Amino acid sequence: MKSDRPSSGIDRRVLISSLALLPALSGMPFTAIAQTQAAQDSTLGSWNDGPAKQAILDFVRATTDRASPKFVPSEERIATFDQDGTLWVEHPIYSQVIYCLDRVPAVVEKDPKLKNVEPFKTVLSGNRDAIARLSMHDLEKILAATLTGMSVEEFNAEAKKWLTAAKDPRWKRPYTDLIYQPMLEVMQHLRSNGFRTYIVTGGGQDFVRTYSEHVYGIPPEQVVGTAGGTKFGYHKDGKPFLTKEPKLLLNDDKAGKPEGIHLMIGRRPYAAFGNSDGDRQMLEYTGAGDGVRLMMLVLHDDAKREYAYGPAQGLPASKVGTFTQALYDEAKKKNWTVISMKNDWKRIFAFDQSA
Amino acid sequence: MKSDRPSSGIDRRVLISSLALLPALSGMPFTAIAQTQAAQDSTLGSWNDGPAKQAILDFVRATTDRASPKFVPSEERIATFDQDGTLWVEHPIYSQVIYCLDRVPAVVEKDPKLKNVEPFKTVLSGNRDAIARLSMHDLEKILAATLTGMSVEEFNAEAKKWLTAAKDPRWKRPYTDLIYQPMLEVMQHLRSNGFRTYIVTGGGQDFVRTYSEHVYGIPPEQVVGTAGGTKFGYHKDGKPFLTKEPKLLLNDDKAGKPEGIHLMIGRRPYAAFGNSDGDRQMLEYTGAGDGVRLMMLVLHDDAKREYAYGPAQGLPASKVGTFTQALYDEAKKKNWTVISMKNDWKRIFAFDQSA
Repeated sequence: MKSDRPSSGIDRRVLISSLALLPALSGMPFTAIAQTQAAQDSTLGSWNDGPAKQAILDFVRATTDRASPKFVPSEERIATFDQDGTLWVEHPIYSQVIYCLDRVPAVVEKDPKLKNVEPFKTVLSGNRDAIARLSMHDLEKILAATLTGMSVEEFNAEAKKWLTAAKDPRWKRPYTDLIYQPMLEVMQHLRSNGFRTYIVTGGGQDFVRTYSEHVYGIPPEQVVGTAGGTKFGYHKDGKPFLTKEPKLLLNDDKAGKPEGIHLMIGRRPYAAFGNSDGDRQMLEYTGAGDGVRLMMLVLHDDAKREYAYGPAQGLPASKVGTFTQALYDEAKKKNWTVISMKNDWKRIFAFDQSA
Repeated sequence: MKSDRPSSGIDRRVLISSLALLPALSGMPFTAIAQTQAAQDSTLGSWNDGPAKQAILDFVRATTDRASPKFVPSEERIATFDQDGTLWVEHPIYSQVIYCLDRVPAVVEKDPKLKNVEPFKTVLSGNRDAIARLSMHDLEKILAATLTGMSVEEFNAEAKKWLTAAKDPRWKRPYTDLIYQPMLEVMQHLRSNGFRTYIVTGGGQDFVRTYSEHVYGIPPEQVVGTAGGTKFGYHKDGKPFLTKEPKLLLNDDKAGKPEGIHLMIGRRPYAAFGNSDGDRQMLEYTGAGDGVRLMMLVLHDDAKREYAYGPAQGLPASKVGTFTQALYDEAKKKNWTVISMKNDWKRIFAFDQSA
């Protein structure tokens, strides 16, 4: 029996109850369409119109529209993001290195004979110039002493405590406030289109995992980073635990990035974001896949709102996040998109209300 | 204006269009409730009623019911599964080892001087007794020669080709048909309750990833296995690729399982399934977490439908999947559940229609 009433053919209660069964839909209002429209208008809201914003929108459309010849099945939608300098401030020094330096007094308290041993002695002196001159070898000693030799739980607790208390000297805010709002919006846009977003960082995997979920919405299992081994053992009461060991398993930088992606994900990304020569191989590996791929590099060219350093395009050189002219040239040649923080981003941080 | 028509307050077209926007709902019939009810009746359909089936149902209920004091947020719902002997047949020899033995002729063809070098000479002889007597050291040489030294793509193509063609001599079926149907149902039940299922195997990570998605519904990024390094390099045309290296990064067996879980997932599982002493530490690590946890061991005690080997409970000893009496005793002491294939499983394989 036919009827012209709009409700014909559907039992509304069944439909509503069906919706309630689906976790992804819990709380989803029936005005979804209007909201989706509004969401589209505010997609990438902190981006100025221009080629960078357009490249993101075009890529998502081409890979998720079933009618597109470049359509990518949802299980293959992987996007990888470098962290330092791509998702948050890295200049003048990586936040995790500050964490390690801040941990030195506690390490020395536990092992007092280190007090007069370099490089710990220099760190304890508080002499900023001397600390800045520490060699990579010295730094590695500090990283090993402050990041290993404790249980995973102890490390997590210390890192979380520090992240709550420590503040960046320029902005006087927790380091986790110094996330680039436009990049959060890219991750959200990708995720709402079925992409899984991964961090692929030269930073410590365990360190980044302590805050990635609440800061980026990226769960620990989607953080690939420089990783040391752990050692399984038992407490006196028989309870097992893992100790962080000073044994490098994955140096997740440069060629280590595609190698880490293969180890931890086992799929080639469709989109990759970086900001330095450390990300070159990840972008090359991403770009070598078939179909449409998105490769983007953040260029720090905004001395006023953040920092300006290169040496790409004649910007002053920096000890961190080196974006060489060679990388810039490769990006241009391969049609990777260079994001100008100055021109492409309306605002840099969520707390920045000037935009 | 009020109305008593069922459609009041809802614009049906908006609702249907909203549904169409959600990838998770594409094709979802409006009889979802009825289907869900039917699904519940057939949950664990290949399991006999008993303590093992009950333990699974109780665990899922306790961790997913919001009113339960043991409720676990969905992002933390991780379940890990050993593969060989837990998800598919491992006796009398691991399928991946057969793959490696089968690959030896191709390796020798590429490098003919290996023809008269042990252990390749013995493998080429086809003498089953001699092959069975090869030492672990010999086996490692064969694994290195057949699993490394080629690009990731070449390896994937070879493994997939073999999996399609090779057949188990007893059942005359592809190895991927020898999956335990009851374990597929456990994985499905967990996934439909918001758990993410991971394989955590002593087998090769890359090998298992070639079939895990279509066989188990487990995507490559959720396969943790024994893993070697890869090396990033460039083809002559500048295109980058990864070569599989004979360098062990993760020996994902025994203590290596919780270490691998930390490396690759970064969360402690709520449920863990194994069948041998190689899984002991994974189950201990899982059980050491708070709240309710599920630890299960598959006991191969069904010589008629599959195999019977132990030595737990006086079963004949086996070279693979050793389930010692000590592990059995630990399971009893710690209230882990031992699954009797003979008594707890109505059917073993999907193709077994006798149940």
